[in-house]
This record gives sequence, structure tokens and C-alpha cells, in this order.
Amino acid sequence: MPATLRDPDRLLPADPGTRAIARELYESVARHRILSPHGHVAAELLAEDRPFADPAGLFVTSDHYVTRLLHASGVSLGELGVGTTDADPRAIWRRFAERWHVFEGTASGYWLREELTGVLGVVSELDPDNADEVYDDIVAQLARPQFRPRALFDRFGIDVLATTDDPLDDLEAHAALQVSGLSGRVVPTFRPDGYLDPDAVDFRERIERLLAATGEPASFTGYLDALRARREHFLRHGGVSTDQGVEEPYTVDLDLNEAERLFTAVIDGTADAADRRAFRGHMLFQMARLSVEDGLVMTVHAGVRRNHSAATHREFGPDTGHDIPVATEFTRNLQPLLESFGLEPGFHLVLFTVDETTYSREIAPLAGFYPSVYVGAPWWFLDAPDAIARFRAAVTETAGFTRGSGFIDDTRAFLSIPARHDTARRADAAYLARLVAEGRIGMPSALRIIDDLVDGLPRRVFKL
Amino acid sequence: MPATLRDPDRLLPADPGTRAIARELYESVARHRILSPHGHVAAELLAEDRPFADPAGLFVTSDHYVTRLLHASGVSLGELGVGTTDADPRAIWRRFAERWHVFEGTASGYWLREELTGVLGVVSELDPDNADEVYDDIVAQLARPQFRPRALFDRFGIDVLATTDDPLDDLEAHAALQVSGLSGRVVPTFRPDGYLDPDAVDFRERIERLLAATGEPASFTGYLDALRARREHFLRHGGVSTDQGVEEPYTVDLDLNEAERLFTAVIDGTADAADRRAFRGHMLFQMARLSVEDGLVMTVHAGVRRNHSAATHREFGPDTGHDIPVATEFTRNLQPLLESFGLEPGFHLVLFTVDETTYSREIAPLAGFYPSVYVGAPWWFLDAPDAIARFRAAVTETAGFTRGSGFIDDTRAFLSIPARHDTARRADAAYLARLVAEGRIGMPSALRIIDDLVDGLPRRVFKL
Amino acid sequence: MPATLRDPDRLLPADPGTRAIARELYESVARHRILSPHGHVAAELLAEDRPFADPAGLFVTSDHYVTRLLHASGVSLGELGVGTTDADPRAIWRRFAERWHVFEGTASGYWLREELTGVLGVVSELDPDNADEVYDDIVAQLARPQFRPRALFDRFGIDVLATTDDPLDDLEAHAALQVSGLSGRVVPTFRPDGYLDPDAVDFRERIERLLAATGEPASFTGYLDALRARREHFLRHGGVSTDQGVEEPYTVDLDLNEAERLFTAVIDGTADAADRRAFRGHMLFQMARLSVEDGLVMTVHAGVRRNHSAATHREFGPDTGHDIPVATEFTRNLQPLLESFGLEPGFHLVLFTVDETTYSREIAPLAGFYPSVYVGAPWWFLDAPDAIARFRAAVTETAGFTRGSGFIDDTRAFLSIPARHDTARRADAAYLARLVAEGRIGMPSALRIIDDLVDGLPRRVFKL
Repeated sequence: MPATLRDPDRLLPADPGTRAIARELYESVARHRILSPHGHVAAELLAEDRPFADPAGLFVTSDHYVTRLLHASGVSLGELGVGTTDADPRAIWRRFAERWHVFEGTASGYWLREELTGVLGVVSELDPDNADEVYDDIVAQLARPQFRPRALFDRFGIDVLATTDDPLDDLEAHAALQVSGLSGRVVPTFRPDGYLDPDAVDFRERIERLLAATGEPASFTGYLDALRARREHFLRHGGVSTDQGVEEPYTVDLDLNEAERLFTAVIDGTADAADRRAFRGHMLFQMARLSVEDGLVMTVHAGVRRNHSAATHREFGPDTGHDIPVATEFTRNLQPLLESFGLEPGFHLVLFTVDETTYSREIAPLAGFYPSVYVGAPWWFLDAPDAIARFRAAVTETAGFTRGSGFIDDTRAFLSIPARHDTARRADAAYLARLVAEGRIGMPSALRIIDDLVDGLPRRVFKL
Repeated sequence: MPATLRDPDRLLPADPGTRAIARELYESVARHRILSPHGHVAAELLAEDRPFADPAGLFVTSDHYVTRLLHASGVSLGELGVGTTDADPRAIWRRFAERWHVFEGTASGYWLREELTGVLGVVSELDPDNADEVYDDIVAQLARPQFRPRALFDRFGIDVLATTDDPLDDLEAHAALQVSGLSGRVVPTFRPDGYLDPDAVDFRERIERLLAATGEPASFTGYLDALRARREHFLRHGGVSTDQGVEEPYTVDLDLNEAERLFTAVIDGTADAADRRAFRGHMLFQMARLSVEDGLVMTVHAGVRRNHSAATHREFGPDTGHDIPVATEFTRNLQPLLESFGLEPGFHLVLFTVDETTYSREIAPLAGFYPSVYVGAPWWFLDAPDAIARFRAAVTETAGFTRGSGFIDDTRAFLSIPARHDTARRADAAYLARLVAEGRIGMPSALRIIDDLVDGLPRRVFKL
Repeated sequence: MPATLRDPDRLLPADPGTRAIARELYESVARHRILSPHGHVAAELLAEDRPFADPAGLFVTSDHYVTRLLHASGVSLGELGVGTTDADPRAIWRRFAERWHVFEGTASGYWLREELTGVLGVVSELDPDNADEVYDDIVAQLARPQFRPRALFDRFGIDVLATTDDPLDDLEAHAALQVSGLSGRVVPTFRPDGYLDPDAVDFRERIERLLAATGEPASFTGYLDALRARREHFLRHGGVSTDQGVEEPYTVDLDLNEAERLFTAVIDGTADAADRRAFRGHMLFQMARLSVEDGLVMTVHAGVRRNHSAATHREFGPDTGHDIPVATEFTRNLQPLLESFGLEPGFHLVLFTVDETTYSREIAPLAGFYPSVYVGAPWWFLDAPDAIARFRAAVTETAGFTRGSGFIDDTRAFLSIPARHDTARRADAAYLARLVAEGRIGMPSALRIIDDLVDGLPRRVFKL
């Protein structure tokens, strides 16, 4: 079918009886405002509100989900404009149109079509023959006021949008947005990874900047106080959560002497691998302690080996499509953290994984006991219709619907936000419809649950 | 729909054609007598045959599946009557009714509804407004003779019910039940974990009691003979199996000198972590040897980290909802045991897991070669409709239907037994119906298979 | 239903609307010629073209998928003719007929029925009563010229069939087939495992034979040159790929001095476990280097513990049904190999697994970035309808349809080749039909994709 004739029942189950139930459930939340409590859109995009530059930058170069598969199909990242300003956007767009078929069946392909058609009104399926015409059409659209970021923010019905920010960010863009008359909130998220992991690029320099910015002494205690101060800065600017990205969610409680010793060693560069792991594990533990203190929700995105291809990282930098998941362990790794803070009132710990095996085995059982633990929505490679169906089936029978985080889009691609939330709503409607069709819950319950998944739950879990 | 109007086709597939097949399969076994070869109902419950105390104790306090999710939702275990006799049952029940919705979509929620409606005839959906009324209604029911344990045992159509017992249990309740005129058998299960794991609470005292009870000397050989003697005690009281619960199913064959050395060290408290692991691994190995000798079926429930929250364990004891699964390895861990005993005629080893990844990867391939190995039914967090569907799909293509254990309810909640078996029958009917609808097996085969799953298979595997 | 009345819609989804779509997709490729770029049929079978001996040898004794489950059901391998020439084929066949039901629901059972009915025209369901009659019927069929291997090769419509061969094989059978007028190609595959793994049986003797055959000196460099020479021999005989079977896909780059040291140590027998692992890991790395040089496609079949039952291995040899999968790690293990060769133009690395958890977590993300990495088709225990459905759902949303290998039958059972490819086509039609029914792709795309999966993709990936 032409792209404009999207099936209104798309993503709903094929069985006609189940589909009718799913349609009713979906319709009941289809126009709810969007809550996006974790993502990677920059506040500057909205604060500056400049028109988007061109279709290639918007849909290809800036989206590592897209460059990733084009790269796998044989196009170099340089040809796609990654790490360079020399590339001709129209040439990039033609490359993309030629290889449009590599996205078929993928989540990215689905979102791209939704963006092109649903947001920009492109009326035909992209192909090499119409690439230039579509390009010109999009360029014309992007020049119009209603396609500038703030206008789209309003049109998308975004109620809350969280950004992800460096601890030393001044958050001026957020401050400006608070008084800008935008129809929803833009809140910062404290993302301290580069300041917690001794193996991070420029770790020592980061710590020096952090201590200098806060006037704290070069000791473990000073370092903790500096982090505490920057968290308060985020809180004052509307922040609701901190985010930790780790290859393993290892945690350990150390006494202060040992922590001071490790701090000195990681700054001096004398820490061995075991020391650096202990430091990371203790800092994940300390982030929980600070969340208990200040009330910021703690999210953990675990189990990704970053920058798998060193050659690509050297030439094109991070976030260029070769972060690859690894098997992840939560039960033992989080035990020290949960021993100390798992039963603390008001503490919220949201666990995200790209290792599906942990859903039924570890995360749902943990969230089914600890009042602080929430099952993070399907993340990254798992943020797609079939993966969402597997997620719901894996966690619901153990943890029900009240122990989840609500949907998280986690995207850098601003135009994909409505498509991603719509996908999640359709996927949840599909799952709930099956429970109704199989006599496992009643329709009134299903209607109440889907409303809560879209609205109440993320507000409660993220303290919005 | 009101709870009383349960869908007679509940849990069957939504597609009308497949549902009709599933209904026929389900109906063919719906009224088969129940075989429950592994569970945690106490023999005393039936031997004493006292009326159940009150709805809170029956449905909430005693069921850690239920307290678990209520705890996660913010109610303390103390408020639910765990570890105390002070709590007001009616107040507990009101808490439960307020939070009834947290169970929606869970296996526990499904069983609870079946118990309330199917067993007790409660005619309305539980909610805060009718909590007192339902409470009083259940109290009145429980006072009636037909709701006493033995009457329910008969009404449920239980043919065999296995309990789980301490090796030093005198099994007097079992002996009494054998001459009580009960319409089915109640058989004990030998569960020696606390006597095999040096890290178990009061391990040394347990061993001393074991040796004293059997008159054996304090040596490894004496210890083995003591275990052998207690197994014989269980055999004389109708026992058919032994059960081992382990965090990892590690096994190792040691020579007698090394075993004696380890025995001395674990009793003296001088054994380090590696020694204790070796001792545990060797005792799992020895349990297989003893099963080859005496014919008791060996079941292994592997991969759970017990008592994850030490604070909760200290205050409320074990089995309070925070046993959390871990990734589990069978292929390498069981190789020493299977090298020695895997081909022994008459040896039955049933493997249970809460790590779904092992179904297709390890357990089905092992059971598809070794005549002694059987695929344990979905256990604990996996004992639910969607999880059962995943289990069947994961193991059947490799191991067929004849290498499974038959359904195991593994429950402490006596009233949930019929609901659990009914769920398994419906889930198996649903899976088989799909195979028939997809032309993969014929209907006569499917009818024969479901009959075998419910009746013949558990009898053969558990030597009933 | 009788076996002859196989449902023409078998394996297609039950929902009528989805089934109609699936049928159209399946029909569009049902008669495509077969590409089998990885398998274990011997070239001699076709070169010699002798009639098949008897039904027992053909369907039971030679197929360890079949002997495996019969063994689990209590029949010894000796009774099935494994490792002996004394067994009476008719007695074996009767055993098989008695236990036909153990295969119900399994992939083997499905293929066996397809072979009996689809290839040999057996008109009734096998059972103990008709075992002799069916046996005689098959014997009569096998004596006819149209049931000799080459005639079946033509009838099956095989376009390319890859064998799997020892590096020192002279490939005379392949040479003979090239001029035999066969309607398709038979190509060898270089399988060097026994020459790369110091723990392989007769490793030292193999290396000596390898060096002697190529005239290379006993040094690491000589050893590499010898392997290079034998790969060239395979290339000259039409070989397109090399295959590596490993328990773990560990890779490591070593300098030449260290490699020479390890080579000496593994030949002398002085290498410890760490040395032997390093040697294996470096040789997997070197196989990638040689593939970059000579263009042979590199396939890796990882994650199987071979010969789990030592007693069975001693008595009956390898490939007797007790190779058991283990959890497998690709992300970290392959990083050294991919750092060096992952971006090399023309390098093709196809990853096969029997650990399903790696599909969405590791293999699809790797293949979604590295142009060299392809997602291997479901393998061994996973080569079955439900497992294929899980595979497609797990990898497609991340990697699409263009990063797969196309179907691989990997079989020793020549008669099962059409059934296996037909199963894969039906399973892919079922998956694509669901995407169409759910409005995720259009029918023209689905028709193009299924054609590519069956024909274009395997030709490109395996350079056919």
C-alpha cells in the first residue's frame, strides 16, 4: 500500500475478535498527551527553535539507528555525513533511498515511515526514483513555521520531555524553556557516567573540572559533595531523575578509608582493573544513597559494551552504532545496593536491560518484592513491537502492570517521539486485548490498565 | 464480567478455529483426577483436618506469592501478618481488597480468582467496598464441614499429593493418613538441603541431630549411611522422590579421602568457600548415587538465590517473597553426575529451572538423550499461562512430549491446587490445538498426548 | 489424518486471514530450487550413486537426531545399529515403529513424516502393526532407479549442495561430480577443527599429516602456510566457505613469537589449559585473516559441548546424540577478530548459535553494524517451526531481512533436505504474513523479501 494509506489497525493482532478489543483499548489512549521521562533530545533544540537543516541530517546522519544498518549494508559512515560537515546532504539522501529496503521489518523502518508520512505528510514510498522529489518536498516543509521544533513539540502533545545532561551543564536552555510559554515541561536528567567510571575518556580532567566548579577538595568526600551539589542544581532546574549507563550493574559498599584509597588511585592512574571495578561499583552504590537523600529517581541502563569497533570510534566518535549488548546479571550485582536502600521509602530504582533473559528471571522478581524497584520499559534494540510483546508476556505474570516504568522513548530523533509512543500504546493494547480475549482480565480492567500505563504510572514512577 | 461468570473458554486461544480444537482437548481431561507429585502442603493439614482459620491467613499471610506483590506495592510484611500473630485478619483482608488490582495479569491473581469463585463461590469481584462482606461470607463458608481440608481433598479429586519434608520428620501424619480413608494418597518427599549445604542455617546442629537419630558415627561414611537410613524411612512411608534445591546444580565426584576431609572441615567450620562448594557439589552427586540404589526419583530445583533481602530475612524469616532467580548452567554442572549415573536403568532425574533460557539450550537436549533425565514442568515464576506456552514451544521440538515430568503445582496454597492443574491443562490444550491447527499433529494424537500429560506421564516419571 | 493427506497449509498460521497471506507468500517460492550452502551429506553418496541400503540405515541408524530420542526412551544405541554392523535392520525398524510417538511434536518427527510420505509415498501412519509392511514397501522403492541419490538430487531441485570435509580430503569425489552431468553443483567446505584445537583427538598426528602433505616445516608459520595451501585446494575444487565448530567463539590476536611458542607447546603436549585456549582463540582469529586473504566465507558454529557422555563416546564414537549446548558469548569473544577484520571489504562471517538468547542480544546487533557479519539461520535444535518463528521475531526488528544467511539445512540425512527447506519457507511465509496482516510491511515487499530469503540472499552471503 502507499505510505499514506497506513492501516489504522497497524500493529494490532490479526485475529478479528482480538483486534476489535485491541482497537477499543488503543482508541481510549491514542490521543493522550505524551510523557517522555527519559530521552536524548537536546534542550537547545527547543530553546533555539531553529528550523531543521535538511532531510539527510534530520533522518540519517543524526540517527545512529539508521546509519548503523546503512553501514552494515556497505556504506561508510563518512558517506553518510557522520563526523564530517563536507558531505552533500542530497547525496546522503539518495544513498538512503537506494537502501530503504534494508529497514523493512525493523523498528527503525517503521518509525521512519511514521515520521515521513505521519509528521511530514510524504505521500509515496521512498525509492531511488523519487528520492530527489521527496527530498525537495521535505526541504519545503521544514522551512515552514509549523515544522520548527517548538511547533512540533506542541503538535505532538508532549506534556513532559526529559533531556539527558552532563552534570556540569549550566542548564540555561532548560531555564529559558521554563519561561518560554511552551505547552509542556522540559526537564533535565543528571547523567554522571563520565564522572563515575575511571575508564571513561578524560576521567581525571572531568573530576578536576567537577571539583573546581563546586569548590570541593580533592578527596572522596569532596568528590561526593561535588556530585551532591550538582544533583541539587538539577533539582532546582526541574530534574526528576539521574541516569546511569553501565556495562555491568555491579555494586559494592566500601568503608570510607577504602573509598578514599580508591579515589586517590583512580585519579593518580595507579588503580588496577579490580580497583577500577570496585570504584565503579561503589559509585553506583553511592548514587543510590544520594537518590535516597534527594529523591531523584535512579535509572540504570545496564549491559552494553560501548564502542565495540575501536577503529570506528577513533574515526567517527562515540554513539556511531557499534554499542553491543552483553549478558547481564542483576540479582547478585544489585544485592549490596538493595540490602542498603531497597526498602527505603520514596527510593525509586528503574532497571533497563538489553538482555531479554533478565525480564522473567531477575527484573520482574526483584520488582515483585522490593517497593523501590521498577521494571524499565523495553529499551534500545528491544523497543519494537515484537520485543514489546515478549516483554509484556515475560514480566506481567510475575509483576503485574503496576511495577513497570511506563514507556520510555530514549530517543535522539525528535520527530520519532510520537511514532514511538504510538507504537507502545498499540503494543500494549495488543497484549491487553489478548488477555481479555482469553478471559484473563475483564474489559473494564483492561481500559483502566492501559490508561494507567500511558499516564498514571510514569507520573508516579518518575515523580512527574 | 463478574467473577462468577468466568469464561468457560478462559486461557484457550482466541482464534475461533483453534479454540474449538483446544476446547475439545481440554474437555477430554478436564475432570481427570489430580496427580500432584511435588508440593508444599503440610500432611498435618489433612491429618488434623481442622477448619481453616480465616480468609486473611488462608489467602494472604500464608502465601508468599501474594505477600510479595503487596509488599512491592508498599505494604509492610508485618501489616500482612507475616511473622506475627498480632495482626487483625480483617484489617489484612481490607489491605488485600484495596490492592486487588496489583494482581491483575499475574498468575497469582488468576489463581486467587479461581479459588474465590471456583472453590468458595464468591459472586463478586473483590474491591474495597465489598471487602467486609466477602470476608464474612468466606468465614461462614469455612465453618462448614464441606470446606474442611479432607472434604476439599475429596472434592478436588486428588489422587496423589506429595508433601515436602525434613529428613528427620517422623512422618506420623503420613502414617495416620494412610489409614484415614482419604480418597487419595499423601506421600512424603525427602528434602535434605539443610543437611547437605554447609552454608545452611544450623548446619552443624542438623548433622549432629541426623547422626544421633540414626546412630551413625561422625564420619563421611556415617553421614552417608544416616542419609540412606532416612531415605529408607521415607520409602517405608510411601515416599517416591527426593528434592534438592540449589543455587547452582554443580556436581563433582570426589574420592573418599577427600570427602572425609571436607566433611571434617565443614563440621569444624574450617572449610573455605571452595571447600563448601565442593562439599555441596559432591553431595548432589551422592544423592544421585543413593537414588540409583534405592529408586527414589531425584528432583532438582536449581537457580534461586534465597533470602535476597537480609533485613527481611532477619525480621520475617525465610520464604517471605525475596528468593530471586539467577542464570543457571546445567550442561557442564551436571556432567560429572550424568557421567556416573545418567545411563543407569531406573534412575529418574527431573530438572526444574527458573531460567527459561535453559529450556531449549540445555534441559531439552539433555532429556532428549539421557534416559534418566526429564524436563521439569514450568516452576515458580514460570508456572503461568504465557510462561507455560513458552515452555512447551521451547522444549517440544527437541524433546517431544514424552520427556517431560507432567505438571507439578509446587504450592503451599491448598485451595489453589485445582486452579493450577486446570491452568496447566488449558495451557497444554492451547499448545496442542495450535499444532493440530497448523497440521503438525493429528487430533487423535493430540487427544492421546494430553491424556498422557495429565495422567500417564507423571505416574511413570514419579513411579506413582 | 492419514499421513498421505498432509494439510497443504501445514505450518501456516491458524488465523484465516493471515493464513491466506502466508499461503500466497509460500506458493511464490515453494518450487524455487534449493540452495544448501552448509550440510553434512557426503560427496561420495552422489559420486558413487549406490542404492540406499535399507530403511533402518537410512532413517534411523545414520540420523543421530533420531537415535538420540529413541535412546532417551530406553533403547540402547547398539540395538539401533550404531557402532555395529551386526544389527538386523528389520528389528531396528520395528523398534522405531513401536516408538514413533516419541517424535510427535518434534522437528525430527515432522521431517520423518515428510520423507516417508513426500519422498517415498508411504500411505499410512507408521505403527507397530504396519512396521513390516512399510519396511518392505520402502525396500522395494529404494531398489528403483528413481530413488538412487543422483536421481533424488535432481528430483529435489538442488542447485547447490555443500559438503563438509577434512582439510586433507583429496576432493576426488567432488572433482568427479563436476563432470558427472548432475543438475546442480556439489561444493566442498573446509572444516579444520581437528587441526586447530589441541584438545582434538589425535591432534599431533593430524598436524604431522598436514605438514607432510604440504611439505611445510614444523613451525607456526609452516603450519599456517599448510592450512593456506589446503584452503587453496578447496577453492580449486569449488569450495566457497570454511566452517569452524567451537565450544566458545573466543578469539585473540597474538604476536608471532607467542604463536610460535604456543605451537611448540601444543605439539609437545606441554601446553596447559590457558595455553590451549589461547592457541584455539588465535587460530579462530587466523582463520578470519585467511578468509580475508582468499575470500572463503567463514562460518562459525559455536556453543556446543561435544560428547557429553564419555561412556557413550567410548563405545559408539562421536556424533551419537549427546552434544549439548552451553551459554554462548559473542560480543566480547569476537571483538579481537572484528577489530582486525570486521570492516574488511569482502569478508563474510556467518554466526550460528544454539543459544537463542544471543539472537537479539548479540548477533543481530553485531550484524546490524559490521558489514562482514551475518546472522546464521536457526541451527540444530533450533531448526524447527516454532524456533524459526522465535528467531525471526528476535532478529528482524534489529537487523532486518538483509543481514541473515538464508536457510542452512546442516543435515546428514539426504532425504530430509526438501522437507527442511520447505519448513523454512513455510515458517518465513508465516512470519512475513503476520507482518503484512499487522500493517507493518506491504504485500509487494513481503513477496520480494521471501524471494530474496530463498534465493538471492544465500547466493550473496555464500558467494555462490
